[in-house]
Amino acid sequence: MSDLRVAILIGSKSDLQIAEKAIAVLENLGIAHELRIISAHRTPEKARIFAESARANNFAAIIAIAGKAAHLAGSIAALTSLPVIGVPVKSDDLGGMDALLSTVQMPPGIPVATVAINGGENAAWLAAEILAVRDETLCEKLRLARENMRAKISEQEASLNHD
Amino acid sequence: MSDLRVAILIGSKSDLQIAEKAIAVLENLGIAHELRIISAHRTPEKARIFAESARANNFAAIIAIAGKAAHLAGSIAALTSLPVIGVPVKSDDLGGMDALLSTVQMPPGIPVATVAINGGENAAWLAAEILAVRDETLCEKLRLARENMRAKISEQEASLNHD
Amino acid sequence: MSDLRVAILIGSKSDLQIAEKAIAVLENLGIAHELRIISAHRTPEKARIFAESARANNFAAIIAIAGKAAHLAGSIAALTSLPVIGVPVKSDDLGGMDALLSTVQMPPGIPVATVAINGGENAAWLAAEILAVRDETLCEKLRLARENMRAKISEQEASLNHD
Amino acid sequence: MSDLRVAILIGSKSDLQIAEKAIAVLENLGIAHELRIISAHRTPEKARIFAESARANNFAAIIAIAGKAAHLAGSIAALTSLPVIGVPVKSDDLGGMDALLSTVQMPPGIPVATVAINGGENAAWLAAEILAVRDETLCEKLRLARENMRAKISEQEASLNHD
Amino acid sequence: MSDLRVAILIGSKSDLQIAEKAIAVLENLGIAHELRIISAHRTPEKARIFAESARANNFAAIIAIAGKAAHLAGSIAALTSLPVIGVPVKSDDLGGMDALLSTVQMPPGIPVATVAINGGENAAWLAAEILAVRDETLCEKLRLARENMRAKISEQEASLNHD
Amino acid sequence: MSDLRVAILIGSKSDLQIAEKAIAVLENLGIAHELRIISAHRTPEKARIFAESARANNFAAIIAIAGKAAHLAGSIAALTSLPVIGVPVKSDDLGGMDALLSTVQMPPGIPVATVAINGGENAAWLAAEILAVRDETLCEKLRLARENMRAKISEQEASLNHD
Amino acid sequence: MSDLRVAILIGSKSDLQIAEKAIAVLENLGIAHELRIISAHRTPEKARIFAESARANNFAAIIAIAGKAAHLAGSIAALTSLPVIGVPVKSDDLGGMDALLSTVQMPPGIPVATVAINGGENAAWLAAEILAVRDETLCEKLRLARENMRAKISEQEASLNHD
Amino acid sequence: MSDLRVAILIGSKSDLQIAEKAIAVLENLGIAHELRIISAHRTPEKARIFAESARANNFAAIIAIAGKAAHLAGSIAALTSLPVIGVPVKSDDLGGMDALLSTVQMPPGIPVATVAINGGENAAWLAAEILAVRDETLCEKLRLARENMRAKISEQEASLNHD
Repeated sequence: MSDLRVAILIGSKSDLQIAEKAIAVLENLGIAHELRIISAHRTPEKARIFAESARANNFAAIIAIAGKAAHLAGSIAALTSLPVIGVPVKSDDLGGMDALLSTVQMPPGIPVATVAINGGENAAWLAAEILAVRDETLCEKLRLARENMRAKISEQEASLNHD
Repeated sequence: MSDLRVAILIGSKSDLQIAEKAIAVLENLGIAHELRIISAHRTPEKARIFAESARANNFAAIIAIAGKAAHLAGSIAALTSLPVIGVPVKSDDLGGMDALLSTVQMPPGIPVATVAINGGENAAWLAAEILAVRDETLCEKLRLARENMRAKISEQEASLNHD
Repeated sequence: MSDLRVAILIGSKSDLQIAEKAIAVLENLGIAHELRIISAHRTPEKARIFAESARANNFAAIIAIAGKAAHLAGSIAALTSLPVIGVPVKSDDLGGMDALLSTVQMPPGIPVATVAINGGENAAWLAAEILAVRDETLCEKLRLARENMRAKISEQEASLNHD
Repeated sequence: MSDLRVAILIGSKSDLQIAEKAIAVLENLGIAHELRIISAHRTPEKARIFAESARANNFAAIIAIAGKAAHLAGSIAALTSLPVIGVPVKSDDLGGMDALLSTVQMPPGIPVATVAINGGENAAWLAAEILAVRDETLCEKLRLARENMRAKISEQEASLNHD
Repeated sequence: MSDLRVAILIGSKSDLQIAEKAIAVLENLGIAHELRIISAHRTPEKARIFAESARANNFAAIIAIAGKAAHLAGSIAALTSLPVIGVPVKSDDLGGMDALLSTVQMPPGIPVATVAINGGENAAWLAAEILAVRDETLCEKLRLARENMRAKISEQEASLNHD
Repeated sequence: MSDLRVAILIGSKSDLQIAEKAIAVLENLGIAHELRIISAHRTPEKARIFAESARANNFAAIIAIAGKAAHLAGSIAALTSLPVIGVPVKSDDLGGMDALLSTVQMPPGIPVATVAINGGENAAWLAAEILAVRDETLCEKLRLARENMRAKISEQEASLNHD
Repeated sequence: MSDLRVAILIGSKSDLQIAEKAIAVLENLGIAHELRIISAHRTPEKARIFAESARANNFAAIIAIAGKAAHLAGSIAALTSLPVIGVPVKSDDLGGMDALLSTVQMPPGIPVATVAINGGENAAWLAAEILAVRDETLCEKLRLARENMRAKISEQEASLNHD
Repeated sequence: MSDLRVAILIGSKSDLQIAEKAIAVLENLGIAHELRIISAHRTPEKARIFAESARANNFAAIIAIAGKAAHLAGSIAALTSLPVIGVPVKSDDLGGMDALLSTVQMPPGIPVATVAINGGENAAWLAAEILAVRDETLCEKLRLARENMRAKISEQEASLNHD
């Protein structure tokens, strides 16, 4: 496994639970990672410094988790050429539709790789896939993880007959 | 009229038409203004420098016009305590719902005063109302403008009987 | 600080909680304010009298909090040239999308400065920014408030490592 | 036929086409009617005077046609106990969803009888049904109109075989 | 008060609570009414017989309360020229948007007077307004009811200062 | 091929184009069919008679094409135990979302097999699949049709290199 | 009753409750059925093998229950000419709108017969209707089931007077 | 530049225009690529073979462009651990909301990196960023491309004063 690592950004502590789903996946795969609380709107300078130095700091991908207007992923993507993965967070009022559109509808030239609403887990899987493009060991781990998923579903199905 | 002025920001030249609706209103009211092309994502540093120096540069309010993910208003608002007025731009696919939610659903502490989709004209009226809070001359102009609106509707109504 | 103050209107007592978020912000900033229960539909005359005399009564901005068809902000805005800030209230059925569209999609000439669904806090921040345009003392308070936000996020981040 | 009549209100001349669909239905049924241009936001006083004197002026029902924030029907309904029929107008951006929600989601006590987006024709049919509650002659006309509808569909179907 | 009365239809007992809000309003106003359980889809013949004989049975208006595909109001409206008032019911999944659109978007010729989602109360107010068109006594009751609303809001406002 | 056939219902001649897409598929497969203009709201009795006698008239499936409130499929389904296939029609205002929800959100016990907005073609394919459940000859035709689809895509792909 | 049977597929055990509503209906009607856990994304090969052999395994219709991106029904439909019935599952964030659109908006040639969100019961009724096309015994059972529905509503209505 | 390349999949020739926007970006950056017409529903086997051999065929990322139910990206992602980038295509009826939700709302374990509706260009930029994680030459090209964007906006702004 290389020395590259994945950053996980949340705008406030209230999004910690979604970040932890991402972290659990990364740890299972043995991928180094760092969790930060950075807000596009409340700590814009911190966001800027983080983004501009992310590649130099050995990050390979950045996961940005944010709700409502959800500018975090986009504002980071504007300042780095690393792949930025956006996780829209569900809100009480609009169910996360606001964060989804704010995250995914980026203008040409500044992409954000958007995953499902509250999809912290898939953000981590996507980061792993990106790292695995040129990493055969990680690639093999991903293959095994898929096999585990299949096995679990088979177990579930088998258990149906015994309920 | 004071020396304060209003900034109008567009993310690309394609939004010029909406900016011109705002400019027409401001010119009618004799309010100084400046039009800039600044993109939250493609020229983030320019956006930052503009926002951080806006008050010193005698701006009283900032109109930010942007479509799709529409982070422009929010990213400016993060860097100034001037009132920022957001104009969501209609898109071909989602009709501007994306820009509306990205502009209006800002987190606590960093408001964007959002007006209607493609509402360049109302952004200017709102900027004028903000300037008029402590400006009796402008306030009087706003009263006259409202009277003109009423007169136009009366004329329209009168013309109905002659069509 | 000037003698100007901010009005907070709610259509019924059920919206009191959102008003209180606005009031807390205004009190922290030392901005005078007055809370009223006024309904565009159930007390239209009261609404009219309030709006027409708002400027004479030393109000600088009006925060109108309303849900569902949410005509309160618009009907007040029709009768004053003061900046009117609309807060759409979340509903059980459509999550506040109804109130958001009813508040923000105003016709040319009669703007409502719309903030996020249930965004009572940001309505107050916006009112403060409007007052601060020509008030250096309040402007300085806003700068300090932003610094406090940043500090709180840094504390949250620091605490992550100790959880 | 009684001397009661139906008012048709539009906020601006741009909604005239939808009003004309209503007028055509009323004229076919021999129902007296009056077309007015009245804006909830741009001519609020005119709206108020109209609404408060509508019953005294022999109106039996009021059709209010408005788009976007579409407060017209609701603001009239707040000032009269006559049945108010709201016609949401299609907009370019949100397709009329904004006007629909602004018109239909009225608070308890102040109903607006909402018909389909751009449904000027059905607003007139509904007004006729209201007048027909205690008017046997009009009731008979409505029955004949339904028969005509059925006949037209049968003709359409017959013509299918000859295309 | 005339001998005309109002029908309230629900598709199943689960909508009883909304019907009861309508009934409370009608009883307060002394308007005769009848509650029925009739489903457009599960008891279509019963629906047809009810609709076709509604006028003969002295009904002046029909309130139809239904959720999801919500065809009840429309299918009744197809078979009578009495005004039909549709109440879309909130659903767990789409919040009532499905019932709202199914109820309001009726084709030309067959209107449904649609009120707010779960708006049983306003359906009754609207029925009362329809009955009051030619009933001065009921009209006076409606005026008093509006006064009561205003008084309640004033009381709420007064109580704010004592909380 | 059996003597069973497929009915195609449209509410008005304006939906003919979508019906023709269904007819083309059925004719290609050699399935007998009949096109009718029947409106749930404007010709409810005709709709009822058609539905109640559909099975006796040798129909195996009924395709109902309707827009906006789109009750046609549901009202037919209420009166027959034949499979009813609903095709929501695109509208100018809400894009067909209204018809989609009105068609698909049917209450328990009365299903409508809903296909895509304007999906006349797929309604016919679904009808064919239903007929093919116990018809090996038709089943074989469906297999060939799928092969043709695959072949067309291969041709399209091959042509890419020659554009 | 024939030896044909109905498959019920769920993507994970969390959708079991909706499947059980379908199973209850099928069992009441005496229709043979089989429940499987198969995921379009996590067990694609299993899905493929199931779909390709479904007809040979005597299935007459396939019910696929899935939420969010909800590709299950579509991916099965791509590999069989049996009728596939899709049940979109309600999600916490978007209420099932995502699953509804993913299930119903299939491209020409590959239909999915979509029923209501969480409509497991109606999926079974639709499957029964499909089987009943050429099965008079089952057809009679469906007629009786409809009669039972009607009777239950009459009972509910009768009980209203005794509450 | 490495020998890794990017696949661009479209479901039918009608999506070619969006693919060409992606291709233009990749060619500018000197990234090898291959365009295929593969449909998740109409050529499922071709899709499967492509996905299972994609890594062996030296692809580093797969761009899947699809509209409406839009299962293409997800069905490819189910069969490879390469990063799959989904481009939802705008539709005439729902504006691409259907394709967006079908593409982005993937279940845990099988991510699709979703970009904006019709965002072919950003899909290519994202693919380039993924390749650039461990490719300094490409990384430098991305930095230059960003500089070009900035320069173009400056030119646009300069030209404003000369219009």
